[in-house]
Parts: sequence; C-alpha cells; structure tokens
Amino acid sequence: MKLPLGYQYATTYAGIRKTAKDDVTIIVSAQPASAAAVFTQNRVQAAPVKLARKHLETSKGMVRAILINAGNANCATRTGDKVAVATCSALAAKLKVPVSQILPASTGVIGVELDPKLIVNCLPTLLGNLDKGTFEDAASAIMTTDLVPKTASAEMSVTGGKVSIAGMTKGSGMIHPMMATTLAFVMTDARIPAAQLKPILKRANERSFSRLTVDGDTSTNDTLILLANGASGKSLTAKDLKIFEKVLTLVLEDLARQIARDGEGASKLITVEVAGAKNEKDATKIARQIANSPLVKTAVAGADPNWGRIICAAGNAGVEFDPRKVDIMMQGVLVCKAGLAAEFSEERLTKELGKKDCRIQFTIRGGGTGSSRFFTCDFTEGYIRINGSYRT
Amino acid sequence: MKLPLGYQYATTYAGIRKTAKDDVTIIVSAQPASAAAVFTQNRVQAAPVKLARKHLETSKGMVRAILINAGNANCATRTGDKVAVATCSALAAKLKVPVSQILPASTGVIGVELDPKLIVNCLPTLLGNLDKGTFEDAASAIMTTDLVPKTASAEMSVTGGKVSIAGMTKGSGMIHPMMATTLAFVMTDARIPAAQLKPILKRANERSFSRLTVDGDTSTNDTLILLANGASGKSLTAKDLKIFEKVLTLVLEDLARQIARDGEGASKLITVEVAGAKNEKDATKIARQIANSPLVKTAVAGADPNWGRIICAAGNAGVEFDPRKVDIMMQGVLVCKAGLAAEFSEERLTKELGKKDCRIQFTIRGGGTGSSRFFTCDFTEGYIRINGSYRT
Repeated sequence: MKLPLGYQYATTYAGIRKTAKDDVTIIVSAQPASAAAVFTQNRVQAAPVKLARKHLETSKGMVRAILINAGNANCATRTGDKVAVATCSALAAKLKVPVSQILPASTGVIGVELDPKLIVNCLPTLLGNLDKGTFEDAASAIMTTDLVPKTASAEMSVTGGKVSIAGMTKGSGMIHPMMATTLAFVMTDARIPAAQLKPILKRANERSFSRLTVDGDTSTNDTLILLANGASGKSLTAKDLKIFEKVLTLVLEDLARQIARDGEGASKLITVEVAGAKNEKDATKIARQIANSPLVKTAVAGADPNWGRIICAAGNAGVEFDPRKVDIMMQGVLVCKAGLAAEFSEERLTKELGKKDCRIQFTIRGGGTGSSRFFTCDFTEGYIRINGSYRT
Repeated sequence: MKLPLGYQYATTYAGIRKTAKDDVTIIVSAQPASAAAVFTQNRVQAAPVKLARKHLETSKGMVRAILINAGNANCATRTGDKVAVATCSALAAKLKVPVSQILPASTGVIGVELDPKLIVNCLPTLLGNLDKGTFEDAASAIMTTDLVPKTASAEMSVTGGKVSIAGMTKGSGMIHPMMATTLAFVMTDARIPAAQLKPILKRANERSFSRLTVDGDTSTNDTLILLANGASGKSLTAKDLKIFEKVLTLVLEDLARQIARDGEGASKLITVEVAGAKNEKDATKIARQIANSPLVKTAVAGADPNWGRIICAAGNAGVEFDPRKVDIMMQGVLVCKAGLAAEFSEERLTKELGKKDCRIQFTIRGGGTGSSRFFTCDFTEGYIRINGSYRT
C-alpha cells in the first residue's frame, strides 16, 4: 500500500472499552490539510459530530488532526459537548494549533457518560507513539464489533507526478452494547483547496457509503472525513480533479464493500445492480429497497434463488415500473424473464449462491438509462444472536 | 362470539398446498352485501387483487361471495388473470349471481402457475359444506405459516336493536416458500350502503392494519374486505355510524395485534406509542421507524432496556424533534428522561421485558398533540431460520 505523504498515526489503550485493545487514535497531518466531511443525517447527533461540523466551519476547512475514540459514542449524555471540547482543546494545546483544526469522532455505546480525563491523560503517550504508529494500527484501533480492519488505497498520476489516497473505515451493523457507527478517514497528499474538496467528497460519498446498508439503521455518529495536505507538492488541474474524484469514489466503494462483507453475522457480500430505470435516483430507490429487504437477505443466506422476494421488494420502492418488463439475474443466471419464472437449473444456481459473493441484477426492459448499485450483506441467525444479547 | 347474521362459510382441501389441510374457502352472504376493500400498495399486484378491484367497481360495491385460496399467491404467472376470472365465473354460475359479485383472494408462493381446475372441481364440495362449515373453519383454512387462527368480533347497540361485526385475518411475516400475505375478511349484518362503507373502512384500516409491521415487507396480495349484508334488518343513523366506525377500528386493531403476536419467530408483541408530535402523521412516522428497527426488535427479544436504539431509530424517521425533550418508557418504566439516561432498576426492568407484551412509549415534552400507535413483534433467530431455509 502506497500511503500519502505527510500523515502520522498513533493509537493507545485509554480504558474506554472494557477489553484492553487500543481505543484512542490520532491522525496528524504535518501541515494544515484541506478537509471535507459528511456526517450522519440522523436527527439525534452525537457531540463529536456537532463539534466537528462547527470546527470545519470556523477553520474554513483546515485540519491538523483527527481525534478518535472507540467504546463510547459520546452521544445523549449530560456532559457530551464539554467532553468533546475538552479533549480537542487538550490535543490542540499539545500540537500548538487552533482547536478548530482538530476534528473529533466517537463510536460505541450511547447514553453513557465519557470521562474526558481518560483521553486527555493518554495524549502524551499518543504523541510519543506518532513516530512508530502505523496506518494499520489506526485502522485496527477504530474498530468496535468489526471482525477485520478495513483499508483501501490508490495512487494516481497527475500533471507533474503522482499523488496517493488511502482510507480506513469501521462499522459492522449495530452490536450490543455498542451502536456500530460507520467512521471513515481518508487521506491524500494531493494539494486541493477545501472549497473544491467538499463537492468532490459529497458526490463520491453519494455513490459509495450512501449505497451501503447492513440493517437499515443509521447511527448517531456516522462520519466520513477527507484530508488533503498537499505533502506531495502536487496541485491538480481541472482534468486531474475529475480523475481524482473517480479514484476517490473507487477507494470509498472499496471501503463500503468491506463494511458490507463484515456486516454483523454476515456470510456473504450482496451487490444489487439496477438498470433501465427512468433515472439514477429511481434506480437507487429500487436497489435500496431490495438491499434492505430482510426476506431477500435471508433467502441469500439460505442460497435460495427466490426471485419472487426480489420483485416484491422492488414493488415497494415507490417507483413506477411494469412488472411484465422486469428481468432478474442472480449470479448471472436469468431467474425471472419479463416478470415470469425463467427456466434454470436450480441445483446449479443454489451451488453458485453458496459462494461468498452474491450478485443480483434487476433490469427493466426498454426502460430509461438510470442505473445504480447497492452493497449489503446476507442476514443470518448470527445477526440476531449478536444483537439480542444482554448488556453485560 | 356473536356472529353477524346471514353469512355462511365453507372450506375444503383442493390439493393446492402440499400438506392435506383445507386450502380453499368461500364466504357467502345470503343476500347481496355492500362491500368495501383496501388492497396492497405494492407496484407488483397479484391477479386476484386486480380482479377484486375491478369487480367492486363493476358491481358498484355489491358482493355475494369471497373465494379464497391458500398455498399459491396467483401472482407473476402467465395464466394468473385467466385463473382468477375462471374460478370466480365458476362460483358465480353455481350461485347464480353476476361474476362481479364474487371477490377473489389468494395467498402463497409467487411465480408458480395455479391450476384453476383444482378450485373449480371442488366447488360442489364447498357448496355442499356451506350448511355445516363454520367461521372458525374459514379462519383456519386461510392460514399459511400462521401458528394460530386470528378472529375478533363485537356487538353494538344501534337505534332499534343490535348489529354484529366479526372478522378473520391471516399473516405471519413471509415464510419460504410462501409470501405470507395479510388477508382479512370482516362481516357485519348492519345495513350500510357501499358508498358509506368505503370511507369508514379506509379510516379504520389507516389506524389498524396500516399500523402493523412484522418485517417491513409489503406483499403482492394484501387484501382487507368488509361486507355489510343488512341481515340484522338494522339501518344505522349518522350517530350509529360513528360508533360503528369506532367498533370496527377496535375489531381491526385486535386482528392486527394478533398478526404481530404471531409474527414469524416472534416471542413478544410490541406496542409502540408516540405522543407529543406536531400531528398524527409525524407521530406515525416515528412510531413506524421504531417498530421497523431490527435493533429495537432484537433488543426486546433479548429483554434489553436499550433505549439508545429507540431514540436512534426515531432520529431516522425524517421528523424534526429536539432530542433533549424526549422521554422514553419501557413497560411503564422511565428509561430516558429529557434525552438522557434515567435512573431505573435494570434488573427489575429486564424481568418485566421478559413478558409476552412489550410497551414502548416515546413522548416529546411540550410538543404538539399528535399521537400514534404501531404494532410489531420482536425479532428472534426463529425468523432467520424460517426464512433462510431452502425451497424443498
């Protein structure tokens, strides 16, 4: 993995989570980085989400460090806002930068007070670890119920040289006692002004993390931050920027797919592709409805080519289409032709559906050019087992 | 149970389902009954849904019989429309009534051709059974994956005497290989013109079956039919009609609750009550989001007072509210006060949550007068087990 220049990473165990696994992470840019971010659309927003939004505004999109903790969402507590300010201020003082250049992010249980001293007291250790800390350490320390760390990177040629993008993310569904927030941090050493970064991230997010569902629940802490510190010394031309957006989208898609594959109790990654809709928005509505259907997801878990559930889910998307013009493929095999059962070898398809990747293609014949894609996972007894357990 | 006058019921096994359990039912009114119905809003609609809608229009809301089969949804097949017409025509000929006075309803697997002969050939047996068939037989024969039949009834005094309402319903979630459609048939012997019946059923349904979710999937066959044959000889005054609507709503609510309690794999009925919203619509949005959250439903299955998941789900409802003004009660115990953790005995509440009924109350302090209620069930490993199994 070719990492972007000019970023340092450090992690430590501050005692926030019950098991002794690193739970506080800092990502520090050697020079102020342009930043853009997208946050949860839940009406209930965690303190770090509110503060990060405010800091980005105050600093006009300039960021020196991200301060992340796992094990506590810092949400719906009496002291949440103060805790977020206190911990960011402490790190800002140590780094000798304005507090608005620190972005906080938290993931973990909701409604439990977070003791700011746990974080403030471990800052010297963290800063001492910056030289030896790695990108992989950070990807691992931000995990909650994730089984594996999730990273992706890319290098691209631009006018006059190369720049890199590298990202990490976490999230697995929601596991008790934690709300498994999606957090994602993406770094690049390209030089891109914050004003340009914002719309690029918005569009790239729309086609990646916004196309991801594990259980249809949106957390109070979801945060995706993109930093561009310019450490490569390379500025981007208008043409370069377009390619950068494409490459960034691929990196984000890769991260989103990794979250779906690691969904709670999941045994398979499901990719839902819709084509022939009036426009991309309608296609996305249909793809989302199929990806969110517990019936489709349990059928895939059982390696069952039950296309009736797919067309039924699509019918609930609030999009007009003629069922008699719908073709459905599973693993590339036509299971529904013009809205009716197609002939296929059920035995062979059931075997194909036993694989770790499931592809569902829903096409409206002679429809428009709108297409979309959604990522999700199958729905197994493991999900229920994980989420129904007591808080102990 | 006091049954309405002037209705007969008969059931038989026609060989549509694999197990030898009655799968065809007729409900016959001695005289033409006024009728109103509500159907699925899925874009994909089964043949019997389309035909029933057409018949109601042609007959101007007059109905003599309902013809119901379980084991096959008669949906997404080549011959579906013809099958629905042929079977209704055959029954109409036997009863010597216009075919438009027969309403068809089907529930079962999607995408498998239904042989009309199976139904047509058993009509003589069915008509022969009308004298001995019971309301309970019918409630049992319309079941698919339901564990128990579901019925409710009420008697009310009107000017000059009494009238009765009795209803039956089926539905349990979606079980493979069947789409467990919701069907409901409600009979009254009150005399109410079809034109008055329609808005009454629409409003009563809005506050009962429309407030029910098992897994958030809407089937292609959902049908609720209300018949009023006037066999009691009693017409209703405007005041009587208002009471009738209230009683009907209670009967439908009762039936909807029975479906939630019998949801696939369910161990508990969950009632979600929302108060203090701007209006009923907003309150319903919040209640629906909480009732549909797999995280809330798995927490209830695990007897876990995890209110963070409730406020998080509410935050995703697309309704504005101040989280700091939210109180949440579970089983009557305050678990969240003004958006923050309340003090309560977790041990005692966990025990209370072990009961077969779970009540969640979500109140916005100092908000509007909008309130609503939603019925659902908990989410257990049983649901996944049932829906992930192979088609065999």
